Amino acid sequence: MIRAIAFDAYGTLFDVYSIGKLAEDLFPGHGEALAALWRDKQIEYTRLRTLCDRYRDFRCVTEDALIFSARSLGLALDSATRSRLMAQYDRLALFPENHAALQALKALGLPLVILSNGTPGMLAAAVASAGLAGVFDQLLSVESVRRFKTAPEAYRLGPDALGVPAADILFVSSNGWDVCGATWYGFHTFWLNRRRLPPEELGVAPHAEGCSLDEVVDYVRAALNHSR
Amino acid sequence: MIRAIAFDAYGTLFDVYSIGKLAEDLFPGHGEALAALWRDKQIEYTRLRTLCDRYRDFRCVTEDALIFSARSLGLALDSATRSRLMAQYDRLALFPENHAALQALKALGLPLVILSNGTPGMLAAAVASAGLAGVFDQLLSVESVRRFKTAPEAYRLGPDALGVPAADILFVSSNGWDVCGATWYGFHTFWLNRRRLPPEELGVAPHAEGCSLDEVVDYVRAALNHSR
Repeated sequence: MIRAIAFDAYGTLFDVYSIGKLAEDLFPGHGEALAALWRDKQIEYTRLRTLCDRYRDFRCVTEDALIFSARSLGLALDSATRSRLMAQYDRLALFPENHAALQALKALGLPLVILSNGTPGMLAAAVASAGLAGVFDQLLSVESVRRFKTAPEAYRLGPDALGVPAADILFVSSNGWDVCGATWYGFHTFWLNRRRLPPEELGVAPHAEGCSLDEVVDYVRAALNHSR
Repeated sequence: MIRAIAFDAYGTLFDVYSIGKLAEDLFPGHGEALAALWRDKQIEYTRLRTLCDRYRDFRCVTEDALIFSARSLGLALDSATRSRLMAQYDRLALFPENHAALQALKALGLPLVILSNGTPGMLAAAVASAGLAGVFDQLLSVESVRRFKTAPEAYRLGPDALGVPAADILFVSSNGWDVCGATWYGFHTFWLNRRRLPPEELGVAPHAEGCSLDEVVDYVRAALNHSR
């Protein structure tokens, strides 16, 4: 039974690689590589900081990852360029189907929340920039527990805020590692496998999979019909 | 004051990318890519499993990472090929300077240990295969705490086993993330920056850096002379 839906933000609702366009304008020939390394490093730093209990918020971690990535690629990152790239994180592109799909999910009457590593400020900015004001009941940030996903404390924000057991919350993420962590935690999970990657070899599988948010709409509609 | 030395194993003593030669024989044109992705995925899985408290030993994690990586690159990995690649992990190449450098460190009279994510079996096999029998006083595996580096429980194995405070143990690793985790933990750290990478942007820096184990020998000799 699905009684609420929790969405990952980055990669799932917002296209983190859309930043590659600005990166390409700033560093011709290196935009894609910078966007890819930046994202990998950002995720790595969230994990290292959580493992070692050295939390810094996602904006700091994101900026640290940008600095490392530019240096690693031999790109000169002055402070104005750094600020422009960081500012872009507050207005990432929404994946094209998401607006209508989210409205369709909203119309089903379920609470919709974001459960993200992002800071409250980053999430509010990205949601507003994408024209999603009013869509989500809550924006849940790991900032309140100072541990990033995939730590259980981060996932626990969902059931705690919604007052619904994890098993009755559909957790939707495009990130294979995130959907595995959420499944381990106990959510009902949907892997929005946008890049059609092979499944992670972690001995755990999401409950459902698709490559567009439209398929999440179909899945939830079918589940609601089935449970009626 | 340096009273003992703890070495990371994979990447520091043993060249994990040396496996690329066999991988290239098995999958012409893809050996380097497979070795690189395999290593990245292996590390990622150690972190996800530790964050979620879902430990499986390093041999399992390494094999899982191999399976994912081959699939991700579209390479058909039959069980014989998989076994051959896994077996290679027990006889990784030693970096060329390591044998003499380790003997030089041994001659200084300090206890030398390995502190690694590897299983006891993997470590024993790699040490024996590299002709390092008798060099190390102890092979410390995270297996006993079921948490991978960079978790503090893993690093604690060093001071616990040696009976020496972390600050008096020189922790040597080629992995930037490992040396940062070890510094956070409280070790005296040496980043064996073999690939001359930029420093991690984690707000912490190793105490010393060099690109060959010979430089560790010099560093320890100087430190011992200084403290006499």
